[in-house]
Amino acid sequence: MSDAPLDAPVTSEFDRDTAVRPRGQGVHEAQLSSGWAIGHALNGGYLLSVLGRALRESLPHPDPFAISAHYLTASAAGPAEVRTETARTGRTVSTASAALVQRDAEGNEVERIRALATYGDLDALTGDVRTSAKPPAMPPPEHCFSASDAPAGSVPVPEMSHRLDLRLDPETCGWALGEPSGRGEIRAWLSLADGRAPDPLSLLMAVDALPPTGFDLGLGGWLPTVELSVHVRARPAPGPLRIALTTRNLATGFLEEDGEIWDSADRLVAQSRQLARV
Amino acid sequence: MSDAPLDAPVTSEFDRDTAVRPRGQGVHEAQLSSGWAIGHALNGGYLLSVLGRALRESLPHPDPFAISAHYLTASAAGPAEVRTETARTGRTVSTASAALVQRDAEGNEVERIRALATYGDLDALTGDVRTSAKPPAMPPPEHCFSASDAPAGSVPVPEMSHRLDLRLDPETCGWALGEPSGRGEIRAWLSLADGRAPDPLSLLMAVDALPPTGFDLGLGGWLPTVELSVHVRARPAPGPLRIALTTRNLATGFLEEDGEIWDSADRLVAQSRQLARV
Repeated sequence: MSDAPLDAPVTSEFDRDTAVRPRGQGVHEAQLSSGWAIGHALNGGYLLSVLGRALRESLPHPDPFAISAHYLTASAAGPAEVRTETARTGRTVSTASAALVQRDAEGNEVERIRALATYGDLDALTGDVRTSAKPPAMPPPEHCFSASDAPAGSVPVPEMSHRLDLRLDPETCGWALGEPSGRGEIRAWLSLADGRAPDPLSLLMAVDALPPTGFDLGLGGWLPTVELSVHVRARPAPGPLRIALTTRNLATGFLEEDGEIWDSADRLVAQSRQLARV
Repeated sequence: MSDAPLDAPVTSEFDRDTAVRPRGQGVHEAQLSSGWAIGHALNGGYLLSVLGRALRESLPHPDPFAISAHYLTASAAGPAEVRTETARTGRTVSTASAALVQRDAEGNEVERIRALATYGDLDALTGDVRTSAKPPAMPPPEHCFSASDAPAGSVPVPEMSHRLDLRLDPETCGWALGEPSGRGEIRAWLSLADGRAPDPLSLLMAVDALPPTGFDLGLGGWLPTVELSVHVRARPAPGPLRIALTTRNLATGFLEEDGEIWDSADRLVAQSRQLARV
C-alpha cells in the first residue's frame, strides 16, 4: 500500500467529494457524498474536511493549524452549504467561523455543524523539532488486518471503508472477533484507496476514519461526536499514515478519543481530540 | 490549603472578576480585571471563564461540556462585551458561538477571542466511570513550592498568582532555579486564594493557570495561546485541584499543552489542550 497506483485519478474520490463551489460572499456549496457513510450517518471527519476546504477558500492562509467542530445534527448525503465568517486576518494566521447547513425534508434550514478554525501556512514554519512523542509500535501493513480479513458478517463494513486502505493493528482489533482488549486503543495504517496522497485537509478526515475506541472497550455501536478538535502540526509526507487513537476516561455517558497521526517520515503531523457520547 | 478560610468572601475574586451583565439580546457586558494579568497580558484561562459565564447565561444548560476558544488579539483590563449566538438548543445539550470584543484606544471595536461551546448539565449525567487515567503522582501541597518560595527575583511573580494558591511539584519547577528538566511537564496543586471552591467555570481558568510547560523545556517568556479547548467531564468536589500539564511535541514554532485536572475525590474533572506559539 505504500506506493500509489500509477493510474491514480487526477481527481481523487476525496477531492471530488469534498469539493466546494463559491456562491457569493462567504458562502460555498457542497455535495455531501454517501460514499463516506458509516451506517446511516456521514463520517464526522469527512464533513470536517468539507468545512476545512471551504475555510481554506475563504481565508488567505492555506492550512488548518487548529480547527474545532461542534456537531449539532446528523448530516445527510446531498446538497449542503458552508457559510464562513472571518474573525481576523493576520500576517501569519487567520481565524474564521464556519457553519455547515442543509435543508430538511420540509425544506427548512438545519445547521449540521458549527466550526471555528485558525489557518496558517505550514510551509512558512521554521525552527527545530523537539518531541518526546514516539510513533505507535505497529506491525507493517502486510501484517495488519483490513475489513476484508474479518470473518464474513462478523463486523459491519461501512460504506466509507471502500474509500480507504485501512489496516488495523492486530493488537487492537480483537473486538472484531468478540474479544475487545478493554484498553480503549485503536491503531491502524491508513491510505486513501485511490492512492491520493495525504495532505492537511485529508488529515481532518483521517483523525476520525478508524473504528471507534469504544469497540476496544466493548461498547457496541457508533458513538456520536459532540466535539472534534484537530491541530495540524506539519504537512504529511507521501505514503501511508499511522494513526493511534486512545480513550483514557469513559465517564457518565461520554468519552474522549485522543488521536495522533504520524506520516511516512516518522513525523507527528496531527493531534486530535474528540468528545463522544456513549 | 485544603481548608478554605472561614472568612471566605460571599463574592469571590473569581466571581467578581468574571461577572457579566446582560445588555440586550445575546450581549453581555464584562469588566476585565488586571488582577488576572500575566505580565502585560490577561490570562487566557481567566478570559475563557468570562466567555464561559456569558455562554451559561445565554444557554438553557449550565455547564460547559466542551468549549474551544481561538485567541485573536491581546485583551486589556477594562470594559469588554461578550456576544453570543446560539447554534442549537437541544434537550440534553446546547451549542453557541461567543465573541469577546473590546474597543481600542481610538474607540474602534477589536475582537479578542472567538469561542464555540456545547453546554449540558453535569448533574444529569449518569452511568459508570471506567478510566485508565491516574491522578498525577505529586507530593502533598506542604511539600510543594509556591511563588513565595522562589529566591527573590529569580522568577517573575505575575499579578494573577496573588489570586491563586498554587503549589508546584518540586520535580517540575527546576526551571525556577535555572535547571529545567527538559521533559515539558508542569504539575501543581491549585486553589483560589480566597478559598472559593472550584466549579466548572473556574476549571476553564485552572487549565491555563500554571506556568507554561515551555519553562520546563527551557523556553523563556510566556507563550501566546492560539487555541484552547476544554472538556469538563465532572463537577469538581470541594478542595484543592491537582493539575498536570504535558507537552510532547514542540515543532517549528508551535507546541501543544495537554492538561488534566483532578479533584479532591480523585476524579478526572477536566481535560484540556492548547496550541501555543513559541
